Amino acid sequence: MKKYKRLVRLYIPDADFVCGEKFGISEGQAHYLRNVMRKSAGESLRVFNGRDGEWLATIAELNKKSALLELTHKLLEQKQSSDIWVLASPVKKEAFDMMIQKSCELGAAKFIPVTCAHTVVHRINQERLQAIAIEAAEQSERFDVMIVEPLMDLKKVLKSVCCERNVIFCIERVEVASFSETVKKLAGKPLAILIGPEGGFSSQEIDFIQGLEYVNAVTLGSRILKSETALIAALSGVQLLEN
Amino acid sequence: MKKYKRLVRLYIPDADFVCGEKFGISEGQAHYLRNVMRKSAGESLRVFNGRDGEWLATIAELNKKSALLELTHKLLEQKQSSDIWVLASPVKKEAFDMMIQKSCELGAAKFIPVTCAHTVVHRINQERLQAIAIEAAEQSERFDVMIVEPLMDLKKVLKSVCCERNVIFCIERVEVASFSETVKKLAGKPLAILIGPEGGFSSQEIDFIQGLEYVNAVTLGSRILKSETALIAALSGVQLLEN
Repeated sequence: MKKYKRLVRLYIPDADFVCGEKFGISEGQAHYLRNVMRKSAGESLRVFNGRDGEWLATIAELNKKSALLELTHKLLEQKQSSDIWVLASPVKKEAFDMMIQKSCELGAAKFIPVTCAHTVVHRINQERLQAIAIEAAEQSERFDVMIVEPLMDLKKVLKSVCCERNVIFCIERVEVASFSETVKKLAGKPLAILIGPEGGFSSQEIDFIQGLEYVNAVTLGSRILKSETALIAALSGVQLLEN
Repeated sequence: MKKYKRLVRLYIPDADFVCGEKFGISEGQAHYLRNVMRKSAGESLRVFNGRDGEWLATIAELNKKSALLELTHKLLEQKQSSDIWVLASPVKKEAFDMMIQKSCELGAAKFIPVTCAHTVVHRINQERLQAIAIEAAEQSERFDVMIVEPLMDLKKVLKSVCCERNVIFCIERVEVASFSETVKKLAGKPLAILIGPEGGFSSQEIDFIQGLEYVNAVTLGSRILKSETALIAALSGVQLLEN
């Protein structure tokens, strides 16, 4: 919908979308509309709630005391994101923020931060990271938002949380299967992409990971990629190969 | 070569590599070895010059007055990078630095910054950007360095500089060919990936670009990607599909 592409786009998960319905928005969103985007009553924007597609809405009220939107009509039907999770070790703030943002932009359904042997960063601010994902969803025109999970232990996640999906394990300096052949083989199945911390996985971790039958080790090429580059390459690669 | 993976790796384009040869390094590199990496005479590092593969070297002298390396033996044969260029509009500093870094990390041979109708940034520091590319080459274990060209006009570049390669034109909100089919069709040919500024290309530019017979318009999916994400997705996608 080229016509509406310049309109602000907001994620409003608590509202159910029915034509003509009015609903309030959060204080943060009201502040953003009023003070950052300089919007006022009568102007249009786009909204989505993760369930009902993308809608055109009009600002019914916008002042210090209240902010009310009115739904005009549906612009686009809801589309499901790919069933792809990202498992990645926290790295330094700037690079990790980027990993969250890009993962959401590239359509991942869930991001699980995992602690590995070589992980240096042991605390994350889940709420802040989730806010980054929401902003990325709004800007990339997704219909839903990537969920950011709390920090978990790598082995626990692989053994319990991921045991019913195919894990794509990106590894370097080792002769393993080609990325494209592996991804083609797994087309349409629930996937998780596993990316190591700076410094890679420990050899004990590599043995553990490779021992799981639902893990597929792949190479992203002969160059050594930073964690965030490897993540973007693998995540976009999976989706470009599926199309 | 896992054994040497922790060794510092330096790009030394002016030296020809012959076993036992000694050569000086730049002041900046000497400072880096001595003061940043805390290295001293007798320690090993890896070097490459873009022509003769990767070599093991020993620090023969390292003090305030001089810095001398001695070549020990060749570790890896020279490998040619893919014949892929990147054409992209400058964007704000942080994102553009990232585009340069990631392009080199992902193996592009050349980066041509191009001015488009919606380009907001009209000056670049070519030398600083080239230094970012060199650092990315050193860290990603490339055997050569991506060349960063001066800022040029989009139409001139497309008409003259790129007329003998296939240009992959990443466009959004339009029904065009699938990325993977296009890339497969062009496998092995010299390529250039064209990425627009924030705000996209003007409609006049789109007509001009699409009118060139060596341009292939592709989509990277239904989501709207930031320039740097689109670049990384397309560049890694091309290479993952070719393997």
